Amino acid sequence: MARPKAVLFDVFGTVVDWRGSLIRAFTEFGRGQGIEADWAGLVDAWRGAYRPSLDQVRHGERPWCTLDALHRASLETLLPRFGLDALDEAARQFTVRAWHALDPWPDVVEGLSRLKKSAIIGTLSNGHTALLVRMARRAGLPWDVVFGADMFRHYKPDPETYLGAASFLDLAPGEVMLAAAHPSDLAAARAVGLRTAFIPRPLEHGPGHAPPAPPEGVDVTAESVGVLAAWLEGA
Amino acid sequence: MARPKAVLFDVFGTVVDWRGSLIRAFTEFGRGQGIEADWAGLVDAWRGAYRPSLDQVRHGERPWCTLDALHRASLETLLPRFGLDALDEAARQFTVRAWHALDPWPDVVEGLSRLKKSAIIGTLSNGHTALLVRMARRAGLPWDVVFGADMFRHYKPDPETYLGAASFLDLAPGEVMLAAAHPSDLAAARAVGLRTAFIPRPLEHGPGHAPPAPPEGVDVTAESVGVLAAWLEGA
Repeated sequence: MARPKAVLFDVFGTVVDWRGSLIRAFTEFGRGQGIEADWAGLVDAWRGAYRPSLDQVRHGERPWCTLDALHRASLETLLPRFGLDALDEAARQFTVRAWHALDPWPDVVEGLSRLKKSAIIGTLSNGHTALLVRMARRAGLPWDVVFGADMFRHYKPDPETYLGAASFLDLAPGEVMLAAAHPSDLAAARAVGLRTAFIPRPLEHGPGHAPPAPPEGVDVTAESVGVLAAWLEGA
Repeated sequence: MARPKAVLFDVFGTVVDWRGSLIRAFTEFGRGQGIEADWAGLVDAWRGAYRPSLDQVRHGERPWCTLDALHRASLETLLPRFGLDALDEAARQFTVRAWHALDPWPDVVEGLSRLKKSAIIGTLSNGHTALLVRMARRAGLPWDVVFGADMFRHYKPDPETYLGAASFLDLAPGEVMLAAAHPSDLAAARAVGLRTAFIPRPLEHGPGHAPPAPPEGVDVTAESVGVLAAWLEGA
């Protein structure tokens, strides 16, 4: 098989540490506002609401909307449970926008800069374009192209996302590789003909969580983006 | 008025010197193949066929297709006129793909790198995503985001392009600026609420052509991308 011409990345969990970034941001915010709360619990519950809310859109139970709107709706239902009903509108907007300002894992910026020499690099995320562009500018992620879910009006794992990105790049599915930390994402990409790279992120859900087993059928398992770049150079 | 949060660029003529780049590429190609032809004439006639071919799509006389397909169709009608009927399939593909490999004007790379510190920078071009991504990688254009016409399935000056890009960035039209060398593009962007920067490119059509008069109503006329960056820093 030929070397992939483009490597597209899942973002939340694979490229950025959403959990650590949000806990840090909310803890600092709470300290400034004099609010004590179980911020880690809120972040985990919020992320837990993510997949079901995407699925509502995917199954037509909710009209198309971006992740900002889904995050805001989930937040509203979670705040009472964490004793945070009193958060004002500005604070609610701040917490939703914190998802635009996530920190990358330590290997990412250097790894992407290296990988970019061998292949087109981009996002293939359930985030929307505006979020992904702001995140990349803040974190220095050197994407050649940003594909947000709003460009397809579909959420992964719908095939329209994987195939739509390949089509925008004028590449066959087999010329595009998805790099992700999540076996379900990789399986869906592989099912429609993309090549796949598993990047385990054992700390995605915090310490003490076993990472998923390496999924079957991936082209490569790479512990970091730099390792993936080295693999691609030798492919 | 507030400073624009994003500056989106017309590409062919504004960012890259399509005419000089193509004449250089085809002259070199012809020398290698032992083909003599009026390459400058071909390039000018090819670009002349551009607007009418876009308009066929815009007016529904031709189904949606990318610039590669439009370029190929125009090329087929032009080759006989330039005594180039004998060009083989590989040569025809090479000439169409040469539109992906255009050189930027000398001020562009440094200017964009500076402008990127003040605003989101991106393309808003009638080129398609695949073309724009390859061009940017080759030329080192540091876009934050690439908007190709295929993301809107509309060609400029259709309002869906200007408003669609603002929407993808989650910005109001008045928070987005179009930078272009062409008054008609700027007028269409302004008509739907975008801010506008005129970047004159007096050599776009070769020496001896008068550049268009500065269009009325633009926010700024800047002789280079660096001058535009300086204006934005002071805005």
